[in-house]
Amino acid sequence: MASASQPYSLLLLPGDGIGPEVMRQVRRVIDWLAKKRGLEFKVEEALVGGASIDAHGVPLTDAVMAKAHAADAVLLAAVGGPKWDGLTFEKRPEAGLLRLRKEMDLFANLRPAVVFDALVDASTLKPEVVRGLDIMIVRELTGGVYFGEPRGIEDLGNGQRRGINTQVYTTDEIRRVARIAFELARGRGNKVCSTEKSNVMESGLLWRQEVTAVHKAEYPDVELSHMLADACAMQLVRNPKQFDVIVTDNLFGDMLSDEAAMLTGSIGMLPSASLGAPDANGKRKALYEPVHGSAPDIAGRDIANPIAMLLSFGMALRWSFGLHEEATLLEQAVQNVLNTGMRTGDIMQPGMAKCSTSVMADTILREMDK
Amino acid sequence: MASASQPYSLLLLPGDGIGPEVMRQVRRVIDWLAKKRGLEFKVEEALVGGASIDAHGVPLTDAVMAKAHAADAVLLAAVGGPKWDGLTFEKRPEAGLLRLRKEMDLFANLRPAVVFDALVDASTLKPEVVRGLDIMIVRELTGGVYFGEPRGIEDLGNGQRRGINTQVYTTDEIRRVARIAFELARGRGNKVCSTEKSNVMESGLLWRQEVTAVHKAEYPDVELSHMLADACAMQLVRNPKQFDVIVTDNLFGDMLSDEAAMLTGSIGMLPSASLGAPDANGKRKALYEPVHGSAPDIAGRDIANPIAMLLSFGMALRWSFGLHEEATLLEQAVQNVLNTGMRTGDIMQPGMAKCSTSVMADTILREMDK
Ligand SMILES: CC(C)[C@H](C(=O)O)[C@@H](O)C(=O)O
Ligand SMILES: CC(C)[C@H](C(=O)O)[C@@H](O)C(=O)O
Repeated sequence: MASASQPYSLLLLPGDGIGPEVMRQVRRVIDWLAKKRGLEFKVEEALVGGASIDAHGVPLTDAVMAKAHAADAVLLAAVGGPKWDGLTFEKRPEAGLLRLRKEMDLFANLRPAVVFDALVDASTLKPEVVRGLDIMIVRELTGGVYFGEPRGIEDLGNGQRRGINTQVYTTDEIRRVARIAFELARGRGNKVCSTEKSNVMESGLLWRQEVTAVHKAEYPDVELSHMLADACAMQLVRNPKQFDVIVTDNLFGDMLSDEAAMLTGSIGMLPSASLGAPDANGKRKALYEPVHGSAPDIAGRDIANPIAMLLSFGMALRWSFGLHEEATLLEQAVQNVLNTGMRTGDIMQPGMAKCSTSVMADTILREMDK
Repeated sequence: MASASQPYSLLLLPGDGIGPEVMRQVRRVIDWLAKKRGLEFKVEEALVGGASIDAHGVPLTDAVMAKAHAADAVLLAAVGGPKWDGLTFEKRPEAGLLRLRKEMDLFANLRPAVVFDALVDASTLKPEVVRGLDIMIVRELTGGVYFGEPRGIEDLGNGQRRGINTQVYTTDEIRRVARIAFELARGRGNKVCSTEKSNVMESGLLWRQEVTAVHKAEYPDVELSHMLADACAMQLVRNPKQFDVIVTDNLFGDMLSDEAAMLTGSIGMLPSASLGAPDANGKRKALYEPVHGSAPDIAGRDIANPIAMLLSFGMALRWSFGLHEEATLLEQAVQNVLNTGMRTGDIMQPGMAKCSTSVMADTILREMDK
């Protein structure tokens, strides 16, 4: 993936709940990189989700949408919360996120489920089942039942209503996300497992056929298997280490990636990237966000885990800016700090040292200084 | 649920793979009940799935469909296998099962995920996370994306195709399955968690609203919560014991019930029931089947675990025939045999005694004799 050049333009969207406080820690890493490594960033911040609803009545304004299009990379923390639960469909915080994904055409959502050695005991699964786990879930993000038409709720009279959504995928939509999965697999364990319900859904059958065709024509060197989505939900619990890359649709990807994330026992650690198609220069639009949500119950208390957010920024450094050395520096600092026994509340364990959001970031920055 | 009277009519559909050999053990329990308890059964056996395709070219004949309608209860083992993978959609083994569900109007699929004390170590999850687990998943089974129209694969020209499925639910479809969940909860932990993606799907929003309405009007004494399907996939891994009854749609239910089943570590142990609406006499059509599949890789070798199939028959005894004493006898015999350390290969552990399908059934029958 071709990289942006300096100044690297970044749009920060802190969103709701714990979003602002974890995003604040990213700012500090940006400042560190500017000061210590002489890198030039052009950083803007804007509202999304509930915060935008409160200020502007919509979960994403056109002005922010335009900024997102213009940026080299977008960093989003999290959206949503009970405060906005009563709103109609298109007015909810989530609609802001869905609009960003759709209008930036971020069709490939990369969600790693990785177990850090220091945190293997945080999992509810037995250590031998998850130690060393490293799965990459590639989820289609701009199609399927999330966006298909017709959709809505109709009134049928007699007190009856009908809710409708449409699952729809085309050849091109399937092939482009499959290619991302195969490319990633080549740089990892060289295995792709494609997941659908081709035994009951024609859209799943098309999925299976198109992934098979791309494989045969372009990636015969990668090992491809197919698994039904229900079997995959099972196998993730039974033997997660059998997987390398999993490629699946928007809805199955939503569930399977959350399930896989929870296998690690520490979703406060997991970043994600959503990528668009390459432009004429090979540059892709990209949005980076933690896998965790806005956690309104602990918001504003400086206790949230900032690591998933920091590692999301690490993914941006690597994939959008080509700053591999700096990405590694950040990732290594996170590892080292975990190895010292420092923990935020969500990953706290007996014998470890509990720290706040900001102290976790302090410590990581000090580690980067070394 | 009102019970059938003697002779109890049963249609056995062994299906494919390990189906025939586990169903054979049910026959033995039926014979035992006839001989030792003087109960009269009228048992018929017929083909479904791949076995029916091979014999008749279709996965379910009209004649078998008629027998299923006429029976007090249908017992199905499993359908499918690689042999029939190349077939078109409507001709596959699974289509036979889907036709049974749809034409018998079996809208409520009850899938317990229970951890047997003797098998707590079979789980990949830590014993403290799953010990005593007892979840009942109520899955809507005749609606949603499994049956919604329009559906199919269209050719768009230029090498492009489009696959379409439709997720659709009506007020009545949601309310009737919600009622089953609330009724069941009253006899258990009195808690229902309703699961959908109401934040991105209108059909899910309708689901949430209708479940809420039924709760308010008819079951205010039951504790109701709502959870998004992705969060539920996570929470099943993080803390499964928080759940009592989960009610969800056909597709989410497919995945979540398989995930929940695998938490127990022994899906060879789990039965399920699919129930229709009560007729004028309060009698419901019902189909009972194990949660596991046809396991073609181990078929015909007398090594499959027959317990899920036997416990499915146990559910039939209880719910279709009102034979609670006999159901308890069978269930208790299974427990006792497990406590002695007898194991089929799928649940084998160090220090236990490995046995075949038929020896497991022998031992359970001997235990019932006591
Ligand atoms: C917030 C919600 C719309 C979103 C989704 O369903 O895609 C979230 O669950 C995710 O996985 O990013
Ligand atoms: C065999 C298949 C059609 C079926 C389903 O998807 O419903 C199975 O997975 C199940 O859960 O009973």
